Amino acid sequence: MFATEKLIRMALEEDLGSGDVTTLSTVPPGTMARALIKAKQECVVAGIQVTGLVFRTLDPSLKIEARVADGDRLQVGAPLMSVTGNVSSILMAERVALNFVQRLCGVATLTARFVAAVAETEAEIVDTRKTTPGWRSLEKYAVQVGGGRNHRHGLFDGILIKDNHIKAAGTITDAINHAQRMAPHGLKIEVEAADLNEVKEAARSGADIILLDNMDDTLLRQAVSFVREHYPAIKLEASGGIVLANVAQVAACGVDFISVGALTHSAPAIDISLDLVS
Amino acid sequence: MFATEKLIRMALEEDLGSGDVTTLSTVPPGTMARALIKAKQECVVAGIQVTGLVFRTLDPSLKIEARVADGDRLQVGAPLMSVTGNVSSILMAERVALNFVQRLCGVATLTARFVAAVAETEAEIVDTRKTTPGWRSLEKYAVQVGGGRNHRHGLFDGILIKDNHIKAAGTITDAINHAQRMAPHGLKIEVEAADLNEVKEAARSGADIILLDNMDDTLLRQAVSFVREHYPAIKLEASGGIVLANVAQVAACGVDFISVGALTHSAPAIDISLDLVS
Amino acid sequence: MFATEKLIRMALEEDLGSGDVTTLSTVPPGTMARALIKAKQECVVAGIQVTGLVFRTLDPSLKIEARVADGDRLQVGAPLMSVTGNVSSILMAERVALNFVQRLCGVATLTARFVAAVAETEAEIVDTRKTTPGWRSLEKYAVQVGGGRNHRHGLFDGILIKDNHIKAAGTITDAINHAQRMAPHGLKIEVEAADLNEVKEAARSGADIILLDNMDDTLLRQAVSFVREHYPAIKLEASGGIVLANVAQVAACGVDFISVGALTHSAPAIDISLDLVS
Amino acid sequence: MFATEKLIRMALEEDLGSGDVTTLSTVPPGTMARALIKAKQECVVAGIQVTGLVFRTLDPSLKIEARVADGDRLQVGAPLMSVTGNVSSILMAERVALNFVQRLCGVATLTARFVAAVAETEAEIVDTRKTTPGWRSLEKYAVQVGGGRNHRHGLFDGILIKDNHIKAAGTITDAINHAQRMAPHGLKIEVEAADLNEVKEAARSGADIILLDNMDDTLLRQAVSFVREHYPAIKLEASGGIVLANVAQVAACGVDFISVGALTHSAPAIDISLDLVS
Amino acid sequence: MFATEKLIRMALEEDLGSGDVTTLSTVPPGTMARALIKAKQECVVAGIQVTGLVFRTLDPSLKIEARVADGDRLQVGAPLMSVTGNVSSILMAERVALNFVQRLCGVATLTARFVAAVAETEAEIVDTRKTTPGWRSLEKYAVQVGGGRNHRHGLFDGILIKDNHIKAAGTITDAINHAQRMAPHGLKIEVEAADLNEVKEAARSGADIILLDNMDDTLLRQAVSFVREHYPAIKLEASGGIVLANVAQVAACGVDFISVGALTHSAPAIDISLDLVS
Amino acid sequence: MFATEKLIRMALEEDLGSGDVTTLSTVPPGTMARALIKAKQECVVAGIQVTGLVFRTLDPSLKIEARVADGDRLQVGAPLMSVTGNVSSILMAERVALNFVQRLCGVATLTARFVAAVAETEAEIVDTRKTTPGWRSLEKYAVQVGGGRNHRHGLFDGILIKDNHIKAAGTITDAINHAQRMAPHGLKIEVEAADLNEVKEAARSGADIILLDNMDDTLLRQAVSFVREHYPAIKLEASGGIVLANVAQVAACGVDFISVGALTHSAPAIDISLDLVS
Repeated sequence: MFATEKLIRMALEEDLGSGDVTTLSTVPPGTMARALIKAKQECVVAGIQVTGLVFRTLDPSLKIEARVADGDRLQVGAPLMSVTGNVSSILMAERVALNFVQRLCGVATLTARFVAAVAETEAEIVDTRKTTPGWRSLEKYAVQVGGGRNHRHGLFDGILIKDNHIKAAGTITDAINHAQRMAPHGLKIEVEAADLNEVKEAARSGADIILLDNMDDTLLRQAVSFVREHYPAIKLEASGGIVLANVAQVAACGVDFISVGALTHSAPAIDISLDLVS
Repeated sequence: MFATEKLIRMALEEDLGSGDVTTLSTVPPGTMARALIKAKQECVVAGIQVTGLVFRTLDPSLKIEARVADGDRLQVGAPLMSVTGNVSSILMAERVALNFVQRLCGVATLTARFVAAVAETEAEIVDTRKTTPGWRSLEKYAVQVGGGRNHRHGLFDGILIKDNHIKAAGTITDAINHAQRMAPHGLKIEVEAADLNEVKEAARSGADIILLDNMDDTLLRQAVSFVREHYPAIKLEASGGIVLANVAQVAACGVDFISVGALTHSAPAIDISLDLVS
Repeated sequence: MFATEKLIRMALEEDLGSGDVTTLSTVPPGTMARALIKAKQECVVAGIQVTGLVFRTLDPSLKIEARVADGDRLQVGAPLMSVTGNVSSILMAERVALNFVQRLCGVATLTARFVAAVAETEAEIVDTRKTTPGWRSLEKYAVQVGGGRNHRHGLFDGILIKDNHIKAAGTITDAINHAQRMAPHGLKIEVEAADLNEVKEAARSGADIILLDNMDDTLLRQAVSFVREHYPAIKLEASGGIVLANVAQVAACGVDFISVGALTHSAPAIDISLDLVS
Repeated sequence: MFATEKLIRMALEEDLGSGDVTTLSTVPPGTMARALIKAKQECVVAGIQVTGLVFRTLDPSLKIEARVADGDRLQVGAPLMSVTGNVSSILMAERVALNFVQRLCGVATLTARFVAAVAETEAEIVDTRKTTPGWRSLEKYAVQVGGGRNHRHGLFDGILIKDNHIKAAGTITDAINHAQRMAPHGLKIEVEAADLNEVKEAARSGADIILLDNMDDTLLRQAVSFVREHYPAIKLEASGGIVLANVAQVAACGVDFISVGALTHSAPAIDISLDLVS
Repeated sequence: MFATEKLIRMALEEDLGSGDVTTLSTVPPGTMARALIKAKQECVVAGIQVTGLVFRTLDPSLKIEARVADGDRLQVGAPLMSVTGNVSSILMAERVALNFVQRLCGVATLTARFVAAVAETEAEIVDTRKTTPGWRSLEKYAVQVGGGRNHRHGLFDGILIKDNHIKAAGTITDAINHAQRMAPHGLKIEVEAADLNEVKEAARSGADIILLDNMDDTLLRQAVSFVREHYPAIKLEASGGIVLANVAQVAACGVDFISVGALTHSAPAIDISLDLVS
Repeated sequence: MFATEKLIRMALEEDLGSGDVTTLSTVPPGTMARALIKAKQECVVAGIQVTGLVFRTLDPSLKIEARVADGDRLQVGAPLMSVTGNVSSILMAERVALNFVQRLCGVATLTARFVAAVAETEAEIVDTRKTTPGWRSLEKYAVQVGGGRNHRHGLFDGILIKDNHIKAAGTITDAINHAQRMAPHGLKIEVEAADLNEVKEAARSGADIILLDNMDDTLLRQAVSFVREHYPAIKLEASGGIVLANVAQVAACGVDFISVGALTHSAPAIDISLDLVS
């Protein structure tokens, strides 16, 4: 639970190192001011709290006022927050704070676009474990803020039997049987399937969720139809090669969840800047 | 110097937490195999070493064989490295390892495209401090691998006097004078200028480098022409709003350096996967 | 995943502090010997690996040979492992190593007694989160070694809705509905019930597992009978006030799982000692 | 001196990991309440401060009110402390906080029983280094609270020459001579003796304290009588196989100290619970 | 940026370990008092803030009042600060706090003597990387307080090409050329030269600063004269074997900077003590 | 016990930060060589092992060969060790390694001078807690190497009742009584005395050691004479204002121990350098 504060300290250390030579040599000590952080692009906001925490980690006397809440949609030029206090502290924390918020807004904004694209269906957009190392919790939070839902957080809080596990265990049935006997009894069992036979075997063997991996629309619809008819309690998730251009089409096939790696590994940063205003 | 090994541990901790419930309950202990990591997109490779280190941090007995070197350009399907050893270890480290390499290849590949775009000029592509928190050293390394050059690493190893510092100091001249007196004598002084008057004042006051911020082509050419004629020892850097579509045009104005934040904050990840092959 | 190695270092630090003044002032440097670690009580062994790791953390040149495997039942006087190398290193690590193994054997041994007591039934013995702070993974591992099964590892990998959550959410039905909508979709929903009405509401609202809390045998049997008849997919767990004397009786009521806090919070240590043998 | 706060953080991390999925998905954010922590068994209280610190480490805004002081004897149902504030925070810290206090009360309560058993004699009950790894300071503190006295904290703050050291040094006399020459001059020298000859050699060679190891009553009385007559400045400690049933008898032999490993390695946890009361 | 707080914690841990046995057993808990920290030697003060931080790290309720500011010159007996609060806390932090301030005052005082010795010249006294491991930032700060100027902080924020680098690169010219092409463009290039030929080659190849290493006065004056005439933009630094007795003479040769390792590696501690005053 | 490795990492981090820009830009990767570390002053060697560890922490492939052992007396020019391997690694670790060894040799050398000065007497030279924060263990080790004996390591392994403790406790007698009752029974009780009355009270009340603080020769001799006659078991330590010039005179008064703060807080560094030799 202390991962975010550790990441903030790492980030400040890597930027400040032995000290901010520019600020130390040009800004008169003790100068006070107010700064405004603004969006220079339309976006969905995420990360207001962690951004404030960056400033306060560097200097607990800085005063932060949020102007928006996570989840708000901003127009160009809209202020996110103000920071008031020692100018040197503000300038020393500025870049690190912006590096956090620009990325989290990027993830929330991209997620919101995927969510909007499937709004007419029952499908939910979920994230993956394809996150930036060190950023798992923050990026998964931004996905939530953008309207997405979180898949398992890591390898520890969900069972997802993939092709490699199946190979090692022998068959889909074997793998599911082992997991039922040995894994903590509070976890559902999700199994990856690449074709209809695998879907059938997984369903028959007791899978709680089936991941339909890289299937085209025809196959997706067949899998959905089979499962809905014979195993209505099983949930279905589509995955693989899903982009904004095709996500609505995948959703229309009737799956429950669509997982999208790009939400966290390829969201472009939002352009956000800090200006001293007084 | 231990930041990368710390980031690897954080990444393994956030993914593995209390253990990989799927692998533990489906893969027979002691199974051995070889896995191949392959590019599923064309790319410039970066991060071979850190990727191997992820596997060896989790299990020092895994054997890593690099098939390519950082900087190599790969075709679709080309192998990056093989990993041989305990299957459970390979599967437990897989996602974290791929999360590192997919991002670093992304940064190197985007950098290489910018570098190629200005290849006919003298301009060098440099990075910025707009990096992912926790990733400063790794991303700056990937920029180098992609053919770019590193700007200062952080606030500690270069003086860059921006508009806010100038406001606080009074004038450009005041800010430069203070820096000359107080900063470590081994650092050059770079000053941001927004128009031709500021360029002239910075040059006159002893700036070693001038950052031409958000200037259009006409202004850029005037600034270059003035400085080359009167202060030939001063280096010039263009910055602000530079994308692949306009970078060649900026370079053609005759600046020495072009800094691009997107290299590190918005490079899309490269699609890279791991498959057990035996 | 690095928690065990961190705990070992803490344990060595708290025992060795600024150095072992007795060994340093009485044992001639460089003396070599072999030591044997032996059980002075009957027990089920657990912790062979972590015990060896204590010695090797203090001195990587020590040679460890395990004489038994985790899960083995030992008679009085049976050797667990030998340690060969520098006498000073062995004596400096001795107490910390024994402190680990005596506790883990204690947990495994007590678990094995509970498991034996219900061997005639279908019920499985599971642990709880009532573990020694800092020892969650090690103690849960020892429970497995003793033949028990792990419940969720922590608050992150299983949903268990207790009376306090129900109060806060309004009703059992409300709480389950919220969890179904918001929690990661790979987690089952377990709900605590104190009487038959709560069992019925939980079952009706979609609970995957029902925790029968502090129920007497009559009530337990009624709950089991109701659920088996109307909701055969739901799993049942008994909990509260279960000791060796009554666990067989609880198991005979037909529940799937019996959770026992004492496995980890009150298992007496096994008497284990180290002797230099050459 | 920061070991306790480190252990608290480890404990919170191992329980909370990536987040409390139950609380997050069932408790409405911002709900406030008061909780009461109560003993469900008679006990001697220890750990009020560290328990409060667990709550405040998770959420500094929680308000803690102690209802008793360490060392107080509680009846069944007596409240230990109240915690007021955000319900989610209280529920997230509850188990870890109880895991600390149930163990520390267990150690203090068991110690108090041993102390009571020797109350008619001059003997003092002391602890050993047989503590739970990571818990040395906390458990030794609970022994004090229960009326016991601390033996050395670790290998660094007391000289205790055992049989293995004697073997390595040659003789008891050699070992004592070395220690007198080389160890910090502020430490007394304690020597283990298994029979009367060893007691005599230790006394003659300058031991400050003699540990009478695993001696029966007859031998104990002989040793006490010899030392009191010829070396009245030497202190005597009995050790080995001492339980509640025989401790009074050992004390009656006239030793100064009785060391008991079970105080810290086998004290059963006290049953303590938290209930929301408003 | 967190290095100082980490060093303070290390220092408190190494002194306090498992607790202050003297204070715990002789000072009644809860006793309050005021203590005064005084100089017993004339000195230049440095380290007021870090000294206060030591006390507050141990006990945040201690109240610190500075009586002087860093850079002040003190007479024998002058108070530096008062500390008010719990006596036990004051006594437990006393030695560590004094160990910090006695060393930092030592560095500032010695630096001030060197600075005074060259006051009649243009030369500035600069420090080196010959600092106490763990103390780089603190000692460099004390040099500033004493009137000295900081050289580069470490290997990362300044280029200094020494004889070994030149050997490895081939020639001075080669080394400079490589550095110009590859190092961050905000760093000046300093080159060590041992004789006049090397000075000339360095100047010709584009060195920004030349380090005149271990030159006698005659050589120093020749080097200065050559560079001032032909390369007026180049800065000159003298280094090697410079002590209080000869520093004025070196300065008189006309160099810009004189670097002195002894400032940080051999400054004797100032005698400073703490007394309870009420 | 991990403090030294932690200090080495801190030292490497503070010197290397984001990388050695000089070596990276001038030394061709992969160049191999051998370097020799030599004394440029006569000295007693200390720190061979930690110095080697600095190099191996940076690059485990470096090969270290010690040419001398701790405690050896070196002439000018004598080699301490050779380091063979990657030149870049050697140059990157050089300064940190030398910063360790130059300080430790300084402490050992100064200690040896004090020890030599009292060689004709029974007095032993002991160190104090006036050490460099972060360096307690290393500096106390160097004192041993120089022939001195260690006083208590910190506040935890020795009782030393000073004037402030006496004030708080009431009288010397009160303070000693409290300590006898409450402190771990393996620690001797040392008491500071400023005049003959205090010496007598301390002796009468059961002090094991008396610290004769800042006494002149006359008073020292009176104290020694009184204690030797009436309390022959008590040890005597002189302290305060002892320098090389007067230490022999103090020793001649007949005390057992002389404690000298300057050994660790004011030992000048020994001049030691590294040269590439092939």
